[in-house]
Amino acid sequence: MLEVIEDWAEWELVLAERTPKLSARPLESVRLLAPIPVPRRNLFCVGKNYREHVAEFGRSGYDQPDRSEELPEYPVVFSKATTSVTGPFDDILSHQGVTSELDYEAELGVIIGRGGRGISREAAFDHVWGYTIVDDFTARDLQRKHKQWLLGKSLDTHCPMGPYAVSADEIDDVTALQVQSWVNGEARQSAPVKDLIFDIPELIATISAGITLQPGDIIATGTPAGVGIGFDPPKFMVSGDVVEIAITGLGRQRNRIA
Amino acid sequence: MLEVIEDWAEWELVLAERTPKLSARPLESVRLLAPIPVPRRNLFCVGKNYREHVAEFGRSGYDQPDRSEELPEYPVVFSKATTSVTGPFDDILSHQGVTSELDYEAELGVIIGRGGRGISREAAFDHVWGYTIVDDFTARDLQRKHKQWLLGKSLDTHCPMGPYAVSADEIDDVTALQVQSWVNGEARQSAPVKDLIFDIPELIATISAGITLQPGDIIATGTPAGVGIGFDPPKFMVSGDVVEIAITGLGRQRNRIA
Repeated sequence: MLEVIEDWAEWELVLAERTPKLSARPLESVRLLAPIPVPRRNLFCVGKNYREHVAEFGRSGYDQPDRSEELPEYPVVFSKATTSVTGPFDDILSHQGVTSELDYEAELGVIIGRGGRGISREAAFDHVWGYTIVDDFTARDLQRKHKQWLLGKSLDTHCPMGPYAVSADEIDDVTALQVQSWVNGEARQSAPVKDLIFDIPELIATISAGITLQPGDIIATGTPAGVGIGFDPPKFMVSGDVVEIAITGLGRQRNRIA
Repeated sequence: MLEVIEDWAEWELVLAERTPKLSARPLESVRLLAPIPVPRRNLFCVGKNYREHVAEFGRSGYDQPDRSEELPEYPVVFSKATTSVTGPFDDILSHQGVTSELDYEAELGVIIGRGGRGISREAAFDHVWGYTIVDDFTARDLQRKHKQWLLGKSLDTHCPMGPYAVSADEIDDVTALQVQSWVNGEARQSAPVKDLIFDIPELIATISAGITLQPGDIIATGTPAGVGIGFDPPKFMVSGDVVEIAITGLGRQRNRIA
């Protein structure tokens, strides 16, 4: 996929010609991997990027040492380690003894096509290859204890991705896509991408201001309200629980806690 | 280097046999790259890991929203993007218009050899391939504004690495190494690795508790007191300034601000 994205001008034609000639296989007969199972580097992730989620995160007391329900003035950007990526239907490891506060975060993942630095808001979508679903799964206790979020966001299998990578030409208006999640069938999150505080062009412009974005880079754009710590008391996930995430046009992922 | 580190058992013998037979070239005739110019993923970095630096960082007001001079209870771990890596004698970009608060951070970089998850303190050094110098160069304004540190730590060329990667067998006692820095020839930082609050085994055990470490992963272990924001008023770097970092047995790097 990284090669396909990097040389998309060429691959787009090859795939358009060849794919219709391939014989179909029932989806149930294969195991879908994450569309980018081994990213070139850590995923860029954005925290506190939907208003209602900022409020629930502030109230929860997990945004240490801030405890703030104020909207962020600038995008809060952190990363998720490459080894956290797992398939759209794979089990999520519970890491007993390391964390006891497992939480889901349904997010739109933006996949960068053409790389670059100093990308303007106006040019931002020219650098987007496409989209996928990312579960920015989080160990809340580690997120809080270590202040910086890398460890709490990066445990092995804590980044289910997919089921598909959808090229941007298939999506008419990305801001209209609805991000939704369910736990054991119970609806938890639902918000359109247009509710983002810092929109996709702003995120690309902010990150690329001093950092060269590369083909295949993934930006997880933030999660809407309705995560486990949004409840009082918090609803953490336990072994056997199932989280599902769907985004309009991008399919649905379903992961069980092992 | 990533291949050499991954298959060290084999390469160690090959290099030991072949290297003495190679013809020597004067060091001035070559441009040394970073020993690992394109890491497999973001570098793991540790903040607030020397007592005096915790105090200067707290006093500076840059540790927003914390402003705390208290020692961290758990390691503060964040990451630096792969594209920030540059050579040990290359220019550091000033990124005018993006940041105006450039600061250096001299650090010991630990290079992981054998990967793994759940590595114990006792087994930690069995997973260390060797060491290098890392300048965890920082845009302080971005570090503060974005709360999470990824952007402020990851601007292009803001991670000078090297001049050498030194295998662990060359170092008798890593805790005895002295980490030092100079700006325009003026001594700024000097502390032994044994002053780390969370030592190397603790860092490896903490990070690998839920994250599989990989051969070639780099852990920048934290910086001693004496960075630019430790002064009142802060001494930020400007174009033409030169930062030098040396660590006992690991050589010396020298980078000019472009």
